Amino acid sequence: MIVDALRDAVGAQLLRVGDAISDDDGHDEALGVSPVRPLAVVTPETAEQVSRVLALCTEHRVPVTARGAGSGLSGACVPMPGGVVVSFERMAQILEIDADNHLAVVQPGVRLDQLDAALAAHGLWYPVRPGEYSASIGGNVNTNAGGMTAVRYGVTRHHVLGLQVVLPTGEIMRTGGRIVKASSGYDLTQLVIGSEGTLALVTETTLKLQPRPAHALTVLAPFATLDEVTHAVPKVVASGVAPSILEYIDLLTMAAIRATAGLDLGVPDDVQATALAYLVIRLEGDSHERLERDMERVAEMLTSLGAIDVYVLPSGAAAALIEAREKAFWMAKASNADDIVDIAVPRGAIPALMATASELAQTHASWIAGCGHAGDGNVHLAVFQPDASVRKPLLMQLFAAAVELGGVISGEHGIGTEKKPYFLALEDPAKIALMRRIKQAFDPAGILNPGKIFDLEGGPS
Amino acid sequence: MIVDALRDAVGAQLLRVGDAISDDDGHDEALGVSPVRPLAVVTPETAEQVSRVLALCTEHRVPVTARGAGSGLSGACVPMPGGVVVSFERMAQILEIDADNHLAVVQPGVRLDQLDAALAAHGLWYPVRPGEYSASIGGNVNTNAGGMTAVRYGVTRHHVLGLQVVLPTGEIMRTGGRIVKASSGYDLTQLVIGSEGTLALVTETTLKLQPRPAHALTVLAPFATLDEVTHAVPKVVASGVAPSILEYIDLLTMAAIRATAGLDLGVPDDVQATALAYLVIRLEGDSHERLERDMERVAEMLTSLGAIDVYVLPSGAAAALIEAREKAFWMAKASNADDIVDIAVPRGAIPALMATASELAQTHASWIAGCGHAGDGNVHLAVFQPDASVRKPLLMQLFAAAVELGGVISGEHGIGTEKKPYFLALEDPAKIALMRRIKQAFDPAGILNPGKIFDLEGGPS
Repeated sequence: MIVDALRDAVGAQLLRVGDAISDDDGHDEALGVSPVRPLAVVTPETAEQVSRVLALCTEHRVPVTARGAGSGLSGACVPMPGGVVVSFERMAQILEIDADNHLAVVQPGVRLDQLDAALAAHGLWYPVRPGEYSASIGGNVNTNAGGMTAVRYGVTRHHVLGLQVVLPTGEIMRTGGRIVKASSGYDLTQLVIGSEGTLALVTETTLKLQPRPAHALTVLAPFATLDEVTHAVPKVVASGVAPSILEYIDLLTMAAIRATAGLDLGVPDDVQATALAYLVIRLEGDSHERLERDMERVAEMLTSLGAIDVYVLPSGAAAALIEAREKAFWMAKASNADDIVDIAVPRGAIPALMATASELAQTHASWIAGCGHAGDGNVHLAVFQPDASVRKPLLMQLFAAAVELGGVISGEHGIGTEKKPYFLALEDPAKIALMRRIKQAFDPAGILNPGKIFDLEGGPS
Repeated sequence: MIVDALRDAVGAQLLRVGDAISDDDGHDEALGVSPVRPLAVVTPETAEQVSRVLALCTEHRVPVTARGAGSGLSGACVPMPGGVVVSFERMAQILEIDADNHLAVVQPGVRLDQLDAALAAHGLWYPVRPGEYSASIGGNVNTNAGGMTAVRYGVTRHHVLGLQVVLPTGEIMRTGGRIVKASSGYDLTQLVIGSEGTLALVTETTLKLQPRPAHALTVLAPFATLDEVTHAVPKVVASGVAPSILEYIDLLTMAAIRATAGLDLGVPDDVQATALAYLVIRLEGDSHERLERDMERVAEMLTSLGAIDVYVLPSGAAAALIEAREKAFWMAKASNADDIVDIAVPRGAIPALMATASELAQTHASWIAGCGHAGDGNVHLAVFQPDASVRKPLLMQLFAAAVELGGVISGEHGIGTEKKPYFLALEDPAKIALMRRIKQAFDPAGILNPGKIFDLEGGPS
């Protein structure tokens, strides 16, 4: 019935049902998520079509899950059985690049690599760089994606100036605008960002851009202990050189990177043998000479903080290392990691979090390896423990430690379904109740991505 | 009755009633706002006291208006007759400065100048600089205050990591945290920022800090026309030198600044005679030498864009000019301006907006003078037209032009009561309806600052 109504609304050519639906329509990249087959996949070309689809689904009380590139890591775009997927594969156009105002207007299906190539031609740059460059802007908005460069440039929410969204009841509205500041009513843009497709569907995003930096320098610093690395991080941030990347990589992850990527980083064997952790620091700017002088300061600082040595990487090796680091998730997956977490804590609390992680790994006879956006206090840990009855209490204790340290369960991946039990157990119930009321203000029938982040009492199930 | 309940709840020493209430408790600095006498002023010392007060006011359906320093410009902290003011004058402590994590935790009554002095001792800096440095952090959070340095550093919402808030129903909750990124449920921090005291009362704010730049250089560039100035702005932004201040000042405003502040800026009389507008550009950084070289680039660019000359200001004169510019509002007030607006439009649309403003001034036999955060597209205009029946239609047309250009009514002052008629007339009704539903999710009895931004149907009046 809803299928007939959808066909009438958007036309058969924008609808997949039955065998035309593939497994790829029903999952993201979260470890342990199984594909779910929706009733129908709609591939709208306009906001008006999205509006008609949502109004129909509200009318028929049918759950709707939005889909971008499907590269999420929390299960947020896994549909409900019997539900409808709105896939933005046909809304993937860069509508405008405005060089005067440093902004771009894009459809939700636009991929990061596609945007980057288009902006490069204008000397402009969208500086948010989550690990997966095939990710869509719509997905980035909905998870508030971060990535390696957030330490300098911030995360998605700092670069979105405005949205066009469609409410579940069908209203099309614009939030924010082509402006960098506003104090004119509640900031609906910021509320929709990071809401994992539960409040409204994004049909257009206005992004803030900046001039593309002309030069970059990358160094790799091995340390004898992870503790020295994590203690060095706040000092580098405080120095004021404003690195665009400030990552730590532990021994296991570096070994995997080296093996997978076949990287020669010029680190002598004897140093490799004693290094237990690495720091990667990248500086970017307009003047190569300035970067060199800033990097000298950084190198001196790192040496005084215990670095075994500091290696300036040739640009090819630097790019390869950064790319390999971005693919760390895929290595974890290939190594049969059982879960991955992306806890964010205060930068200075990373040593305490890592000590807890190491203790929990030991007491639970598990492995925890990782790397992370150290400058942001955002660590990515792969947890190796196939027995869920051991793994889940371990994770609960790890997340509880993060919250105790003033942190959150997820810095950038989101809650989705996969982190929901931990989120609900550890978050203030009054806050969850308020979020549910906000959800109802947007979505009275509870059709948008039910079961993600939290459950709605009385919504479709 | 509510007064007795409040006295029982917080004690007589934290309550002002009757003659103990002064006119100062009942107004802000918006032009044309008359003081309103509330029934009672509560001056809580703890979040728990705020919670008790709000729960009582919800129970008794009594309107509550929060008050910081009272330096707002939209009427947002003007109380309701018969209502309660919660004044944060006793919650004015800097609770913590955490140099490792670059953050400060402050109570809402902390003033910007107080915070700045405390941070200076640590070499740290809170870079948001609205014109009024006696303003409170609580007020800044509630208006999403901006100011001259927003062109480089962003506005209040970019520097608030977390809040402690009290809901109108009394729940005390923490949003965000001591972290620079999060994707763990809806961003309640960002929703409360800019909500003008209508959603929750802020009792603690965690601010993101940065290293204090050691050096600064300021130049003043006179131009023969305002049009040349506004066309130069996007070029300076695109150059990548990242000015921390990029202000335009028109002829009338500059004359007032010069007269009021008694400033000698070293601009020869013949240049003054031909200049119709000025650009002020400030660069900040760690190396004086780098700033000098960057400023050379800027100066060359300005000259090629039509600047009559470019004057590097001695640091004393630069500070005096910036301070005088920050006080432009007071000059407008002293000159009997009848209203002031702080429209934000896309940076490149300033020339079009200014052309409309000038046309509207002529057709309405009024004066419009101004200055503004040109790099942000945020213009501050003083409107001189004592006859409200002429002024209001003029303003409505000016705001409509701004919205048409992709802008908003207020970039940083907020809507309050004073811009509410324009906001309601020009904003999408579906958006206003959604904001009302969000308001109800926070404040079911509608007690928090009723009549600000929009009216609530069925709330106290």
